[in-house]
Amino acid sequence: MRFARLGPAGSETPVLIDGGVAYDLRPVAVDIDGGFLSGRGPARAAEALAAGELVPLDGADRLRIGAPIARPSAVLCIGMNYAAHAAESGSAPPAVPIVFLKTPNTVVGPNDDVEIPRGSEKTDWEVELGIVIGQRALYLDSPADSLAHVAGFVLANDLSERTWQLEISGGQWGKGKSAPGFCPVGPWLVTPDEVDHADLRLRSFVNDEPRQDSTTADLIFGVETIVWQLSQYLALEPGDLILTGTPQGVALSGRFPYLRAGDVVDLEIEGLGHQRQVFVAAGSGAGAGSR
Amino acid sequence: MRFARLGPAGSETPVLIDGGVAYDLRPVAVDIDGGFLSGRGPARAAEALAAGELVPLDGADRLRIGAPIARPSAVLCIGMNYAAHAAESGSAPPAVPIVFLKTPNTVVGPNDDVEIPRGSEKTDWEVELGIVIGQRALYLDSPADSLAHVAGFVLANDLSERTWQLEISGGQWGKGKSAPGFCPVGPWLVTPDEVDHADLRLRSFVNDEPRQDSTTADLIFGVETIVWQLSQYLALEPGDLILTGTPQGVALSGRFPYLRAGDVVDLEIEGLGHQRQVFVAAGSGAGAGSR
Repeated sequence: MRFARLGPAGSETPVLIDGGVAYDLRPVAVDIDGGFLSGRGPARAAEALAAGELVPLDGADRLRIGAPIARPSAVLCIGMNYAAHAAESGSAPPAVPIVFLKTPNTVVGPNDDVEIPRGSEKTDWEVELGIVIGQRALYLDSPADSLAHVAGFVLANDLSERTWQLEISGGQWGKGKSAPGFCPVGPWLVTPDEVDHADLRLRSFVNDEPRQDSTTADLIFGVETIVWQLSQYLALEPGDLILTGTPQGVALSGRFPYLRAGDVVDLEIEGLGHQRQVFVAAGSGAGAGSR
Repeated sequence: MRFARLGPAGSETPVLIDGGVAYDLRPVAVDIDGGFLSGRGPARAAEALAAGELVPLDGADRLRIGAPIARPSAVLCIGMNYAAHAAESGSAPPAVPIVFLKTPNTVVGPNDDVEIPRGSEKTDWEVELGIVIGQRALYLDSPADSLAHVAGFVLANDLSERTWQLEISGGQWGKGKSAPGFCPVGPWLVTPDEVDHADLRLRSFVNDEPRQDSTTADLIFGVETIVWQLSQYLALEPGDLILTGTPQGVALSGRFPYLRAGDVVDLEIEGLGHQRQVFVAAGSGAGAGSR
């Protein structure tokens, strides 16, 4: 199944997308959030669709696409999880998953304009496979237990300000990961049965020029390992988002310029949809969530 | 004013504490959260108290004390913010505030039992002054603007698992900061007019032996600088919690043993109250939020 949330920022309508039609999920869901995902929400949505109880959302094609999940309680990120990206960042491949966090208020829709933060000289893109947690996960016994705690997968852009992340951070990355709008997510939350999460092509483009082109088969730590590992250190909550890391081809490599106002970034992951963000100057009033 | 939340974890009742009496705030507040703090909540609470419209909460003395704020959207932490603690951790004092995050689901009541996480060998205490945000803060012009965005102050314990934070982290601290129950907060949220936040004695004890004893006058980056600085990099939301760093005297120094099941940690900050946590083994069923 594919879930999405359509409408103005902060008042999106949950929908189930089937055969290209966006069905209004409000008869069975208040929102696509931890409560929906951890309960019988997805199963009830499927039952309601099969029983013909859902109707298409009127004018869905004209609505803004929001993030396909309501604001998570945490956005956890895995760093340096593709060997070639670690190399372009000047690092060796990690022996253990490297964990950092973004503030959850960074989550916005996949096509919302993104403000280049005030004073930023080094705003950078990162296409990533995102994991959405379905069931609370703590102290899982093995990676084989992980998928039972996963609601689905999303496309995400883990935007970064490299000066703030690396040069004036004392080495802690979070400072450069949490500017407003720095986590476009969506368009869809796709359930695990619909994709082979271990072999998905992921790509990014800036002004239609290719930047990243890799596959989740190259992840150093895969989905099952990440969820199991994180559950040893903290409790993953339903609706939480885990970004699994980005492949080579970002501006930090020195091969490409950082983002400027007017640039357009496209991202896609096989089976998880496409994003397009226009980058704008901070304070223009066209920023995160306003589109 | 002093706000608190009393009752079982997840269903606390908001109260205003005045003259040693806990007044039931439900006539004017659903909860002590971002909505309450950013609106006219505190002012209406004061008005209702003055007008005699609030009544004491029945049996308040027998209730569990919860965290004095509902779950924040983010828990931001400032690292190495006392020179002597930076030294005991093997670091030079930072030139810029170092920022890392804890997951918000770590926030528990001040006297809740805390589980030593499974596999932990190095669970450590950190008494800290916490800042609670009252008004959204982004791109503040100067430190002089910060206090207008602060709802008040809290006592917090920034618990840490040092192996996970430092030895198997790839250098990113969040992995060792987010175990369940790793952020006891409270007992009170105290409004800025009630304390001199720039000169508060803060102390910790393990099994009644002194560990930390310092003052917020020794903060490298003070409250106003922290809020202003953070607002350059991210949007602080009403109800968010900022932990300002810990002074010397933690187990990481090598001078004291790490925490074991059965240990009792006491913490206090002048004007902000006292905490006492009993540490228990993970999986005993007596963990975070159950007391």
